[in-house]
Amino acid sequence: MATEIGFFGLEKPVSFEGEGSRDPLAFRFYDKDRQVAGKRMEDQLRFAVCYWHSFTWPGGDPFGGETFMRPWMQGGDPMAQARAKADVAFELFRLLDVPFFTFHDADVAPEGENLSGSIDNFNRIVDVFAQKMETERVRLLWGTANLFSHRRYMAGAATNPDPDVFAYAVGQVKAALDATHRLKGENYVCWGGREGYETLLNTDMKRELDQLGRFLSMLVDYKHKVGFQGPILIEPKPKEPTKHQYDFDTATVFGFLQKYDLVRDVKLNLEQNHAILAGHSFDHEVKLAYANDLFGSLDINRGDDLLGWDTDQFAMNASEMALVFHEMLKHGGFSTGGLNFDAKIRRQSIDPQDLVIAHAASMDACARALVAAEAMLADKALEGPLAERYAGWDSAENKAILAGERSLEQVAERGRTLNPQPRSGRQEYLEAIVNRYV
Amino acid sequence: MATEIGFFGLEKPVSFEGEGSRDPLAFRFYDKDRQVAGKRMEDQLRFAVCYWHSFTWPGGDPFGGETFMRPWMQGGDPMAQARAKADVAFELFRLLDVPFFTFHDADVAPEGENLSGSIDNFNRIVDVFAQKMETERVRLLWGTANLFSHRRYMAGAATNPDPDVFAYAVGQVKAALDATHRLKGENYVCWGGREGYETLLNTDMKRELDQLGRFLSMLVDYKHKVGFQGPILIEPKPKEPTKHQYDFDTATVFGFLQKYDLVRDVKLNLEQNHAILAGHSFDHEVKLAYANDLFGSLDINRGDDLLGWDTDQFAMNASEMALVFHEMLKHGGFSTGGLNFDAKIRRQSIDPQDLVIAHAASMDACARALVAAEAMLADKALEGPLAERYAGWDSAENKAILAGERSLEQVAERGRTLNPQPRSGRQEYLEAIVNRYV
Amino acid sequence: MATEIGFFGLEKPVSFEGEGSRDPLAFRFYDKDRQVAGKRMEDQLRFAVCYWHSFTWPGGDPFGGETFMRPWMQGGDPMAQARAKADVAFELFRLLDVPFFTFHDADVAPEGENLSGSIDNFNRIVDVFAQKMETERVRLLWGTANLFSHRRYMAGAATNPDPDVFAYAVGQVKAALDATHRLKGENYVCWGGREGYETLLNTDMKRELDQLGRFLSMLVDYKHKVGFQGPILIEPKPKEPTKHQYDFDTATVFGFLQKYDLVRDVKLNLEQNHAILAGHSFDHEVKLAYANDLFGSLDINRGDDLLGWDTDQFAMNASEMALVFHEMLKHGGFSTGGLNFDAKIRRQSIDPQDLVIAHAASMDACARALVAAEAMLADKALEGPLAERYAGWDSAENKAILAGERSLEQVAERGRTLNPQPRSGRQEYLEAIVNRYV
Amino acid sequence: MATEIGFFGLEKPVSFEGEGSRDPLAFRFYDKDRQVAGKRMEDQLRFAVCYWHSFTWPGGDPFGGETFMRPWMQGGDPMAQARAKADVAFELFRLLDVPFFTFHDADVAPEGENLSGSIDNFNRIVDVFAQKMETERVRLLWGTANLFSHRRYMAGAATNPDPDVFAYAVGQVKAALDATHRLKGENYVCWGGREGYETLLNTDMKRELDQLGRFLSMLVDYKHKVGFQGPILIEPKPKEPTKHQYDFDTATVFGFLQKYDLVRDVKLNLEQNHAILAGHSFDHEVKLAYANDLFGSLDINRGDDLLGWDTDQFAMNASEMALVFHEMLKHGGFSTGGLNFDAKIRRQSIDPQDLVIAHAASMDACARALVAAEAMLADKALEGPLAERYAGWDSAENKAILAGERSLEQVAERGRTLNPQPRSGRQEYLEAIVNRYV
Repeated sequence: MATEIGFFGLEKPVSFEGEGSRDPLAFRFYDKDRQVAGKRMEDQLRFAVCYWHSFTWPGGDPFGGETFMRPWMQGGDPMAQARAKADVAFELFRLLDVPFFTFHDADVAPEGENLSGSIDNFNRIVDVFAQKMETERVRLLWGTANLFSHRRYMAGAATNPDPDVFAYAVGQVKAALDATHRLKGENYVCWGGREGYETLLNTDMKRELDQLGRFLSMLVDYKHKVGFQGPILIEPKPKEPTKHQYDFDTATVFGFLQKYDLVRDVKLNLEQNHAILAGHSFDHEVKLAYANDLFGSLDINRGDDLLGWDTDQFAMNASEMALVFHEMLKHGGFSTGGLNFDAKIRRQSIDPQDLVIAHAASMDACARALVAAEAMLADKALEGPLAERYAGWDSAENKAILAGERSLEQVAERGRTLNPQPRSGRQEYLEAIVNRYV
Repeated sequence: MATEIGFFGLEKPVSFEGEGSRDPLAFRFYDKDRQVAGKRMEDQLRFAVCYWHSFTWPGGDPFGGETFMRPWMQGGDPMAQARAKADVAFELFRLLDVPFFTFHDADVAPEGENLSGSIDNFNRIVDVFAQKMETERVRLLWGTANLFSHRRYMAGAATNPDPDVFAYAVGQVKAALDATHRLKGENYVCWGGREGYETLLNTDMKRELDQLGRFLSMLVDYKHKVGFQGPILIEPKPKEPTKHQYDFDTATVFGFLQKYDLVRDVKLNLEQNHAILAGHSFDHEVKLAYANDLFGSLDINRGDDLLGWDTDQFAMNASEMALVFHEMLKHGGFSTGGLNFDAKIRRQSIDPQDLVIAHAASMDACARALVAAEAMLADKALEGPLAERYAGWDSAENKAILAGERSLEQVAERGRTLNPQPRSGRQEYLEAIVNRYV
Repeated sequence: MATEIGFFGLEKPVSFEGEGSRDPLAFRFYDKDRQVAGKRMEDQLRFAVCYWHSFTWPGGDPFGGETFMRPWMQGGDPMAQARAKADVAFELFRLLDVPFFTFHDADVAPEGENLSGSIDNFNRIVDVFAQKMETERVRLLWGTANLFSHRRYMAGAATNPDPDVFAYAVGQVKAALDATHRLKGENYVCWGGREGYETLLNTDMKRELDQLGRFLSMLVDYKHKVGFQGPILIEPKPKEPTKHQYDFDTATVFGFLQKYDLVRDVKLNLEQNHAILAGHSFDHEVKLAYANDLFGSLDINRGDDLLGWDTDQFAMNASEMALVFHEMLKHGGFSTGGLNFDAKIRRQSIDPQDLVIAHAASMDACARALVAAEAMLADKALEGPLAERYAGWDSAENKAILAGERSLEQVAERGRTLNPQPRSGRQEYLEAIVNRYV
Repeated sequence: MATEIGFFGLEKPVSFEGEGSRDPLAFRFYDKDRQVAGKRMEDQLRFAVCYWHSFTWPGGDPFGGETFMRPWMQGGDPMAQARAKADVAFELFRLLDVPFFTFHDADVAPEGENLSGSIDNFNRIVDVFAQKMETERVRLLWGTANLFSHRRYMAGAATNPDPDVFAYAVGQVKAALDATHRLKGENYVCWGGREGYETLLNTDMKRELDQLGRFLSMLVDYKHKVGFQGPILIEPKPKEPTKHQYDFDTATVFGFLQKYDLVRDVKLNLEQNHAILAGHSFDHEVKLAYANDLFGSLDINRGDDLLGWDTDQFAMNASEMALVFHEMLKHGGFSTGGLNFDAKIRRQSIDPQDLVIAHAASMDACARALVAAEAMLADKALEGPLAERYAGWDSAENKAILAGERSLEQVAERGRTLNPQPRSGRQEYLEAIVNRYV
């Protein structure tokens, strides 16, 4: 597919050239039509490019300002700039040939004078998207509302001490869900970046959790009412920007959803960098989500294990992702979810092509990981030893214990005659096995 | 109260001398009969001395062996040594004049040739305890079973891949609960030190969580059957000894207990050092436990914020504890719980009196924190500003939102006309207030 | 001293009222004329208010924008705004009655069209400062140049791969030192916020360290040439904004200064929050600086032990500071250094008076810590036990070992006949002692 | 080479079978005679098996006891057991066909009644080693003394407050160096596991650093006197077992060695797990060591990025090691150093063959990394872009700056006319390049 030379200065999309290629603007592993575990690779990985890091972030950090100097950020009519930004965004979607994109309301259109004005601006850009999507193949993986950047949300949105802020947030989220529905988005995401606290000295945690439960319940009711089919996804993160966020990790959200009776309608959007900030491996979060029937979608990036904040780097770590994809393939792969690039180029990567190269390289690393996962699964490389390890529980008596058919006294009595001998956990053997595949 | 000069070389118990005292073997703040928030100080703080750190740990660490050279650890008949250890333990209880103690089965008696033999040994020491408790004032705050030190538990107890280990653990826990019941223990504690994993490569997390749920359900059934009145307490800890433990933190256990329908019978035993290893303040864990009706008891110690493992140091940090006690007093103080010294003297503190000094100094720090908490609560120093901050939610319309009487569309419509202005969070002001009291 | 009601809406400066005061705009401990360890309290603590956090930071964070809405940040003529900002700054200096302030060049004046223009703007505001300082009592503790916020410095200043950036930085630092000299600043500070790397893949660390050594050598030569009497201070920080900064901590800077022969002229400006990000206590950094004759000045703030980034909170932790001040008093207190409030109010503390309250409360916490330190030192509460612990080294034979007068064989031979017995480290006893004083 | 079936139950050594092999007891990449960057692979990697983790550690951790149940640890005559252990050790060396091994004095022989007795025991096992080494190909990479496990060292060895402990340590280290020299060890290592502190309250850091400096100076003098050719290697570690260790990291040791004039004779033994505990990447530590001419040898293992203690896992992470080996090959590879497996099988890996599999798998991962590093270097994949990035410094004028031939004023004047434009750091491009090779 040819494309006009635009912002990125490229004549043609990134395409598959095979493992031997040395072109940073070609794929070495991502061969979208290749069959992997029963689907086309594209349909397994379901990549999405995100709007915020790629088109809205200017390259600033807490100690420095803009570095990217994107033309659409240099002043001028905000709506015209929003349209220019959309043109570049769709240019990148084409260059990468990704099937999906994602956005926050605030990424795509400027604030208006009040909420109504903001929603109007937003809907005008949604019109632009709708039009572009008629001729382009890219679809919407999910939409979301930014309830954390503006100062009105500095003390939270749903969990704000001020009910007017709660109402404002409800207004914003309704518009974002409506737009997501209109654009046939496959999911709707909630990231509670300010739903938490800076200090417990001024925080009534119980009350705020109740507020958050109510907010989500209203959203779930509305989703059903308007017939939005996709799940609501919560994106756990333990901290940053706040000292502590209520959606800390998978396990925390699981407790919350049960308490407010939301487990059927709300699933999770998990991220590697958020996982490690919470003290977990990405693999752990994904496995726990599946164990509790909460798996929804993935934000794909990586953090820096030596830093205590969200670096949102492009995922280049095929070994780590292979284990995540292995779990996913075990469960049949994504349903409505996908791999959303919640990843940002480094602040010093100021050439437009850095953005293309970063996405392409990470797509390749994911593809390589997927193929490795497929092979491990096909060979039962990990599943075989796992089944063997727990085989003792397959006996009728032991099944009866787990089925609740034995009392403590009964099992205790049996325990008195046993002298169980430990068996090797074989960790190094299993690590060596994984190294065979990636 | 006079006492015979024994292992600790002291003629008389530690007693209250007032703030001006310079004697490290006297209390400056802990005045047990002083009324605090409607109860005697002793009845508010409910101190317990633990058996494991104080009498069973020899002073080793991962890079070095025994330093304490306690006489009862230097070989000889194990049962005689267990009795000698009990004598010293009760000597310390008397010297500190604490109302409670705590133990694991394995702390107090040696293993036998098999589980039956171990239980026999254990019960013989329980007899010793029962006898001593007839003449001493010390009572049992809680008992527990050590399901983590022996190699049979290296891959978990309830979550072991081998059902025989599960059964063995059930046998052990039954005996420990029976003993706790017999000694009129006020709670029974479960710390799942090996209920977790070293690597996900060999772990079926979903299956193991089901096993753990079953184990606890059997224990709860048994507790009811035998008429044990106290709660079962789970002690959350995120990691160490394993890479990841299932009872990670309060929020995680809340999700687990709901899933396995255990919220009524199981509460939490929280610890500062475990809180910070999980990325939370102690205050956070306590508040979240109260918010979800899971508060049970406290292990009192402190960790080192710069180290990544459990240091279990004696709590000397009155400011931090004052906030925890403030929350506790708000809820009426302990019910069955207490402050258990899950704290160990440093490995270099090899003089017997170091153990007395450490407990006495930490009891004093707790007493000081309790008095500060009482004053803050009486003055509404924190509660006043808190109520004011959320006052907007007291209106009828806003109560209706939280009561589920408003739809998303209704609230969103109202949001369109609002322009909420943020108000100061006043964190530094509140921190200055706390500094007035501690 | 009365003052006109200005931006902060206060009629009179914060003044000492004694420990019983409940006014958040009064001092409870900071009694500037009180004698402490031989000097006025003001002369011991030497407080400075910093320009950047208090007057230049708008309240943003990586996930949200401005919250403070300061009038001097709302557009308009940049130089007029810079003057308005200076007026408010000096109003705060008066209200707090602090003896010092500090600034970066970029805090006080806007960038010009090129470096010459920027320096001109800067010097015009320096004129304003010079004029104000004639009638006010506030003095300059130190000045510095911001070599990290502008995109030209995104890959470092002195350590930039581009020598033109190096030269630009030299131009900026010369102007900042000149201004500091003119305003009789007592020190000049270098914080190398971008002197480090994001990835080693594009970094020649050895070369960059040589560049940094050269840069500092040139600065030291220049300082001597123009007769600037104060020391150059390096402010260590391990990371943030970069992944890794060359001035990681005290120990690292010590190695660097020795290599480039700078130990005589360059000292350290230490900060609690930077210490803990590097894995050290504040106390450790201060003691190590004194041990290597590198102590210069302190940035006073505190970090959040549970967060992995620089929170720069106002220091309210008297216990921790008491140990730092104890060490300082042991060495006679500050020479040219002082306590610079490199501390920012929380993003939600949007009331102007929050800024006053935060400084006042932290000044009070410092004053309390200072008094405790003085008492501990007077009582030899810590120094006494310390001297006793090392007393064995006072013998002639052992002094000879340390003096280099014994060979390995000689000492080894002596060792063969010894059976040294360990003595208690008494940590809990010493912690209890500290609790008596704070 | 055939071998008798012994403790590990294997008929033949692990041998190279090529990448397609599925045998966990075969090498897929480690082909010892293959030429890599001008040397045989074996001579580049110089693998050593360590005694402590593999033969002396019983599988305990802070919460549990022995799991391995090695026959030579089950009581009996200590010297006979030490000989049995040596037999198994040499069996493993043969099975892995490694060129080197390493040990502490305390690993190989039991303590005697006093230091003389301990040295006698030690020397008798050294005789055993000498004899075995006559017929086996394995050599000694380095020896060391254990100055941290016994309670006499609980407060340090060289830095102990008690000079008798210092003298005892000197006696022990002399014997260990003598033995290393006799066995033709290529280096001598010092790991200061207790040279640090638990609390600064009882520590005179300046004095202790002086003691440590003296200790090392004496050792260096002795080494020269007896003609030991290899370097003394310090192994940095920031903490654990102590709260803080003086040999924190490469940068800290560099400052220390300069202060005590030891840079010529003392180099570094670096370890990945110690690097990350100090907040650095392994790559960083290695590059900094080379930059300061301190590189000596490597302990090869990996830590767990989510845990705060030393896990010493077998290194399976080829990508990370490839960058380290790339730096090493740039400098011509090891001189006296090697890759010492300071790695332990997990506590649950209780089968003897787990020890073989773990070493073999990690050797393979290292071999793979080495080959990748060779290719990256040959292609100038990283070196090319690096040289280009700093090319601006090659001009005469810029070289003059770095050579110290320009003053601050001269460079500042030049800076006034510049408007340097940043260039992309290309991090993602470089990460993609690395992914091509590993």
